[in-house]
Amino acid sequence: MSTFRPDHVVASLRQLDARTGGPEGSRRLAWTPEWLEARALLRESLATLPVEVDTDPAGNLWAVLRGARPDTLLVGSHLDSVPKGGWLDGALGVMSGLELLRALAEDGTPPVTVALVDWADEEGARFSRSLFGSAAAMGTVDVEVLRGLRDKDGGALPEILAQHGVDIDNLDGAQTRMADVKAYVEVHIEQGPVLESMGRGICTVTGTKGIEREYLTFRGQAAHAGTMPMHMRRDSFRAAGRFALEIAEIGARHDGVTTVGVAACKPGVVTAVAGETRITMDMRHISAEALAAMFADAHDAAERAATAEGCTVEWEHIFRIPPMPFHPALLDAARASVAEVEGHDVELPSGALHDASEVARRIPTVMIFSSSIDGLSHTKEENTSDEHLQMAADAFDRTCRRAIELVADGAL
Amino acid sequence: MSTFRPDHVVASLRQLDARTGGPEGSRRLAWTPEWLEARALLRESLATLPVEVDTDPAGNLWAVLRGARPDTLLVGSHLDSVPKGGWLDGALGVMSGLELLRALAEDGTPPVTVALVDWADEEGARFSRSLFGSAAAMGTVDVEVLRGLRDKDGGALPEILAQHGVDIDNLDGAQTRMADVKAYVEVHIEQGPVLESMGRGICTVTGTKGIEREYLTFRGQAAHAGTMPMHMRRDSFRAAGRFALEIAEIGARHDGVTTVGVAACKPGVVTAVAGETRITMDMRHISAEALAAMFADAHDAAERAATAEGCTVEWEHIFRIPPMPFHPALLDAARASVAEVEGHDVELPSGALHDASEVARRIPTVMIFSSSIDGLSHTKEENTSDEHLQMAADAFDRTCRRAIELVADGAL
Repeated sequence: MSTFRPDHVVASLRQLDARTGGPEGSRRLAWTPEWLEARALLRESLATLPVEVDTDPAGNLWAVLRGARPDTLLVGSHLDSVPKGGWLDGALGVMSGLELLRALAEDGTPPVTVALVDWADEEGARFSRSLFGSAAAMGTVDVEVLRGLRDKDGGALPEILAQHGVDIDNLDGAQTRMADVKAYVEVHIEQGPVLESMGRGICTVTGTKGIEREYLTFRGQAAHAGTMPMHMRRDSFRAAGRFALEIAEIGARHDGVTTVGVAACKPGVVTAVAGETRITMDMRHISAEALAAMFADAHDAAERAATAEGCTVEWEHIFRIPPMPFHPALLDAARASVAEVEGHDVELPSGALHDASEVARRIPTVMIFSSSIDGLSHTKEENTSDEHLQMAADAFDRTCRRAIELVADGAL
Repeated sequence: MSTFRPDHVVASLRQLDARTGGPEGSRRLAWTPEWLEARALLRESLATLPVEVDTDPAGNLWAVLRGARPDTLLVGSHLDSVPKGGWLDGALGVMSGLELLRALAEDGTPPVTVALVDWADEEGARFSRSLFGSAAAMGTVDVEVLRGLRDKDGGALPEILAQHGVDIDNLDGAQTRMADVKAYVEVHIEQGPVLESMGRGICTVTGTKGIEREYLTFRGQAAHAGTMPMHMRRDSFRAAGRFALEIAEIGARHDGVTTVGVAACKPGVVTAVAGETRITMDMRHISAEALAAMFADAHDAAERAATAEGCTVEWEHIFRIPPMPFHPALLDAARASVAEVEGHDVELPSGALHDASEVARRIPTVMIFSSSIDGLSHTKEENTSDEHLQMAADAFDRTCRRAIELVADGAL
């Protein structure tokens, strides 16, 4: 019988919000004093438990409850937030993990080791490099890229990291922490409107969607808005507009998501036809095959849009990550837990990236979602009912108990 | 028999380019030393003629050849250019006027007074207020608006004007110069590709198109690019894209021109659906009725585009000027001159504004266009063949001779 208390999780979240939130939202931007303040609160809570607490070479904060065997169930998420962010994003997973350690410790020595990790700089809100800590732990960071990153005030990432005891040339040391990890479980808010629209509080997460992210530059001919006849124009903004409408249909047709979120015209004056329009494209799907099909369709659509307006189009790669399907045995564990708690079998892919996306590259992983009110996140309006938060924490605990059994049985 | 020498006009233009042009293009930005250098060249040329030269309270440079009567034919254009501009924009009209004064003076006292004006700051490239000098002379400037204008270095227009002897509180003085003006003739490059595409070198200009210029802000709902399903989105960029395509059709349908030249998305990040997209719209037509119909169609199109994407749209007025049709008698004079020089009756409305747009508000006006190679202007690539420049200067001279007769006869 678990002594896990979902209400403790909500209480910890409110305590965190009281110390690092405010009228503008949460202030836990990674590598800032407010973020250290959030971690100080976590350390205070951990100090009462029989766990080993330290940070790894990538700045991830670990709390390890030694079990009968070194084989480890890892749980966690991140305390860092975007500026003026929400109180739940990341914090729900960390505080649920804290309660799990407390409840397990109360019951004595667990059959396997259970560790909580607070991943460093999941958001990437300051240096535009998300999943920093989990990627370092999985050995997927490109140190040369990191070396060139600066925040909006010109601060260099390597220097800021050094101030926090993180040596950019020694990130590999974080990988050793993962040696005994056999499973990873993370609970997070959905950050989208789907569960709410279904009238549900929680669900199993099947994996994180793969992402293709590109710049597209449509090039036509800049021209005087008054003297260039319509039929002689090569208008790059119209080409970009055609593409934005086509790409939306592609997203809907494949049951994925596609977004043009940024547009800039050159010369960018009211009196000139835009000779060049640069947009971003973000497309996501849980199926690698569907994502590849969407990407191919997008190339065709861009060519059609450019040709229709006498323009050319050039692609520039920004970011790519494959879909990360979660582990079948852990998915079963999560499904069984969700069924026990809320009595249904709803499951969703995650459209957002999470630290779980990095971990799932090589380690059996699963996630649980709670609903998000109005689907809002990364804003001070981010919220979830206490009832749904507790249900999510409960399902997380049950999933972890099942994961511990699987690890103990050598099934993972 | 006119002693007007079109080759002199081209020679003057080359002389101006040698002194104020360069590898980056012309440097005659209004209210700068390079602009004064261009005017110094003009003054040197005028010094050899029996004309009275001075500047009016708005900074316009006048050269007056007294005739038998004070009734005046005014000719002119502008020596100022955009930064890195072309060698012909404005300068063609001023140097043609210079040659007209020379040729008329050679023949003795003309029957009416003929004045050349180099309008100050036609381009508005530094303070975003075009047609400064001609508007001041016509009494259509809003001094309170001028008071607030600054250049990109923060320089205030009133202070810069004061450095050039122009008192912003005494611009009205420029209007007295127009008291005896009975007709205005200006020759200018087309700055568009139409004449070239017709295989023509020159044409009569029927007037300048009216303009409606607005900001449109489409508002939907910012959302996470990964977690918000396509069917639940309210995407402002898609609404703006729909509008850009519809407005292009509206321009083509009414035989006008319509342009979306600027777009900006908020939050403006690759990972977010654009909650707000702000664009500019510029529409022009030579017919006030057609322009009004286009404007009404644009409002319908914006509402449709917004509704289709679950968005709203808000309009914000930027600028409006009615079509300025030129004077029937002067149009006949220009047509006859073009027919003599190039043997056809081609006429075009001007899609660009000119000082003639201001003057035509109350004074009989006409313009002559020369072709523009590739339709380019406001760039160092701006060019026109010597042959077409000389034809334009020739047609200008002939139009002016006819205008002098009309003024002398009291027909204007």
